[in-house]
Amino acid sequence: MTDYYELTMLQGYINQGIVDQTATFELFFRTNPFSGGYAVSCGQFDAVKFLKNFKFTKGDIEYLRQQQMFDEDFFDYLSSIRFQGSVQGVREGTLVFANEPIMTISGRLGQLQLVESALLNIVNFQTLIATKAARICYATKRKDTVLEFGLRRAQGDGALAATRASIIGGCVSTSNTLAGKLFNIPVAGTQAHSWVQSFSSELDAFKAYADTYPDSTVVLVDTYDTMDSGIPNAIKTAKYLEDKGKALRGIRIDSGDLGWLAVEAAKLLDKEGLFDVKIVLSSDLDEYIVESIVNQVSAGIEHEDEREFRQRLLDRLVWGIGTKLVTGSGNENAALGGVYKLVHLENNPVIKISDNREKTTNPGKKELWRLKNHNQYWVADVMTLEGEAPPEEGDRIYHLTDPTKFLMLENIIAENLYVDLMEWYGRDRTEEEVWKESRSYCYNQLYNGIDPTHLRFLNPHIYKISLSEKLYEMKQNYLRDFKR
Amino acid sequence: MTDYYELTMLQGYINQGIVDQTATFELFFRTNPFSGGYAVSCGQFDAVKFLKNFKFTKGDIEYLRQQQMFDEDFFDYLSSIRFQGSVQGVREGTLVFANEPIMTISGRLGQLQLVESALLNIVNFQTLIATKAARICYATKRKDTVLEFGLRRAQGDGALAATRASIIGGCVSTSNTLAGKLFNIPVAGTQAHSWVQSFSSELDAFKAYADTYPDSTVVLVDTYDTMDSGIPNAIKTAKYLEDKGKALRGIRIDSGDLGWLAVEAAKLLDKEGLFDVKIVLSSDLDEYIVESIVNQVSAGIEHEDEREFRQRLLDRLVWGIGTKLVTGSGNENAALGGVYKLVHLENNPVIKISDNREKTTNPGKKELWRLKNHNQYWVADVMTLEGEAPPEEGDRIYHLTDPTKFLMLENIIAENLYVDLMEWYGRDRTEEEVWKESRSYCYNQLYNGIDPTHLRFLNPHIYKISLSEKLYEMKQNYLRDFKR
Repeated sequence: MTDYYELTMLQGYINQGIVDQTATFELFFRTNPFSGGYAVSCGQFDAVKFLKNFKFTKGDIEYLRQQQMFDEDFFDYLSSIRFQGSVQGVREGTLVFANEPIMTISGRLGQLQLVESALLNIVNFQTLIATKAARICYATKRKDTVLEFGLRRAQGDGALAATRASIIGGCVSTSNTLAGKLFNIPVAGTQAHSWVQSFSSELDAFKAYADTYPDSTVVLVDTYDTMDSGIPNAIKTAKYLEDKGKALRGIRIDSGDLGWLAVEAAKLLDKEGLFDVKIVLSSDLDEYIVESIVNQVSAGIEHEDEREFRQRLLDRLVWGIGTKLVTGSGNENAALGGVYKLVHLENNPVIKISDNREKTTNPGKKELWRLKNHNQYWVADVMTLEGEAPPEEGDRIYHLTDPTKFLMLENIIAENLYVDLMEWYGRDRTEEEVWKESRSYCYNQLYNGIDPTHLRFLNPHIYKISLSEKLYEMKQNYLRDFKR
Repeated sequence: MTDYYELTMLQGYINQGIVDQTATFELFFRTNPFSGGYAVSCGQFDAVKFLKNFKFTKGDIEYLRQQQMFDEDFFDYLSSIRFQGSVQGVREGTLVFANEPIMTISGRLGQLQLVESALLNIVNFQTLIATKAARICYATKRKDTVLEFGLRRAQGDGALAATRASIIGGCVSTSNTLAGKLFNIPVAGTQAHSWVQSFSSELDAFKAYADTYPDSTVVLVDTYDTMDSGIPNAIKTAKYLEDKGKALRGIRIDSGDLGWLAVEAAKLLDKEGLFDVKIVLSSDLDEYIVESIVNQVSAGIEHEDEREFRQRLLDRLVWGIGTKLVTGSGNENAALGGVYKLVHLENNPVIKISDNREKTTNPGKKELWRLKNHNQYWVADVMTLEGEAPPEEGDRIYHLTDPTKFLMLENIIAENLYVDLMEWYGRDRTEEEVWKESRSYCYNQLYNGIDPTHLRFLNPHIYKISLSEKLYEMKQNYLRDFKR
């Protein structure tokens, strides 16, 4: 799982005698996904698993030999290769921002080059999807009400990583049974339109399902006509279950104007005293549609006589989200544009200059700090050069590209966001232990950490990313030298 | 790899004694991807592999047992299950259109329900990407000039299927080495910015690469400054190779205004007599940007003194396409919305009615015909009921939803688009044999079959999809009965 140019470069590094030079690469992205104010970092666990198992099999080497592009020293190098570098970075679930390093990989040039493509593939995709999930969950204004339903529209086997990342970003269950098995993630699902079509009437179909799962019946009400057939039959099914001492769990509406239908369905259910029946909405939803439906349902909440009904409706809504969640649609690209850039080689920091100021890299091996004020609100993230003292009161921090913008620190506490990822995720823990930790870390950052103004979908408040004075001056010196 | 609701429905079908009823499902999509005029059908080979290997392992069954949702008869059913149905459909590479069935799966209700999610996942994604590839290749106006570069931004392990589908849609090689190995697809790649940064000067980096691969040197010219440093150093490298009796293969430009840079680079190369050096363009390209660059380069072609230069430039352009190709970005959703609908149960055609006329299904088990006039141009596709005589002169065919639109057939030949897919892709053939067949079938349909007006990106001419008179009348009868 590597781009072919990593291999042709490797042969060149070997020929030039520089394959074992010490080097540092950083992984970062240049734009927050979905025009948002943040991203949810994800994929580090699978990245570490990839690095721990990194090797070339005899079959791999035989295949490369057939390409007739490589020499014997290349195959010698590959046949015994193991990843021996170190990986520092932020944990899964950390909220991260454009242009700050989220992973720093140090080791031998050849090894670091070979693992580039897979690291980017894993971290780019899982970060994209965890971010999308966090945005959708945020839009619901309720905890644990989003079900991931995306398998059939997911990008091939990307479905598995998509489910994992969706759960870390805040979803509560998946329809993807294999992901459920592999990661021990709760699975959920009831019936398709084909179930309803397989019986001579909709009511027969609902009752047959209720007979099979009397404790967890959710009926799909839009096969023929939601208001005139589906919901009346759901109510009959609820009575049918009541007669057996059971209760209808929910109804699902999968087409039509979901906002309008949810309100009308709730009225009919309430009229029958069915206050606890959940209303599951699905059909190509994303954070914008969810937010719009939630806003519309909330709109009447200030009227005394509507308040209880509206409040109860918000509490009974459940969201089934598929396509746009698991493919990260809504960006211009359904991808996070993470890059992997050389920042240090042998004893020297390295820079990549670009005509485009935003694309000039920040040189040197770095650490990443989150500054909080004494009320624990986040003030800014700061990159420092490795070995620098932590940022403290009285320090100046600098804007990444605008030399007129800096900030004098006061009343802050600096938290080191970096951990040794090979150690953190290399320990013997189950899939479930790791995603639960990542999910709860993400939740705490979103709801007890970051200022909510950064969570807005439209024109979110921009979180400050900055350079320490020492790093800022080094970068300026490099730029001056280059101009000369 | 199945949605959980397929399993809960299965338990219900078993309880109701209908799990072994005969049924037919159809796979189709309701909108052509990318607002285009067609799609390139893909994934049938992997779908057949999935069906041939379909089973539940002991581990799968153990996992399902832990869910405490299923009875012993369910586990008995799963433990011995094999897919025994039949699968008719169009071959990979067939151009297909919204609302026509591309796969028809017949067998026992329970088995057909269980394979739904995986079939949709496979066919939706590969069809999306093959279509995107075909569009991008069409935009280049040249054959075999698109390289697939998308691994790092692909959706996790979806990268492999993305590469396969890209090649079937017309790409000529991939950067994804694992896909190269698994499918025997040509691999390509040269160097990254980190290669250039690993040397004390850009020229040293280029020469070092030329020393390693004197027969296939392509240099990346935008690490520092494309016009003032990269291209001049590329020209020096070309001279350096000439002195050894070799030739520079190409330059790659990965940032900046690619249309402008391509023209300027070509002028500099031509001035040095380097007419055969390819110019590889990359950087977040898609069919629209490629078309725009090709149009701009072509614009001067009518002027006598520009013609030769412009023609040569068009012939030397090569395109490296990553993110937007392998993720199918450019849709509102990075997904094809294929669905899998029940159309026949036991002895009866089945319909799904919807308030939305376009969402009402076409009932019954069907076949699909392509009508060509005697000049071999495609006139329309027609669905017939299974066993109907092929469409012929004098027949009427009907619009899917508009009862005022029909067509009397004259001067046509009807080609059956359906083959037995289990047989076609179940034969003992290599991955390479299959993708080569699919790729060449696709190419022939695009360039020697369909009228080019359907290939336009903006407001493409709509290809006619229609119903035979018998099918049309059956559908109308169902709708009348439902209204009553």
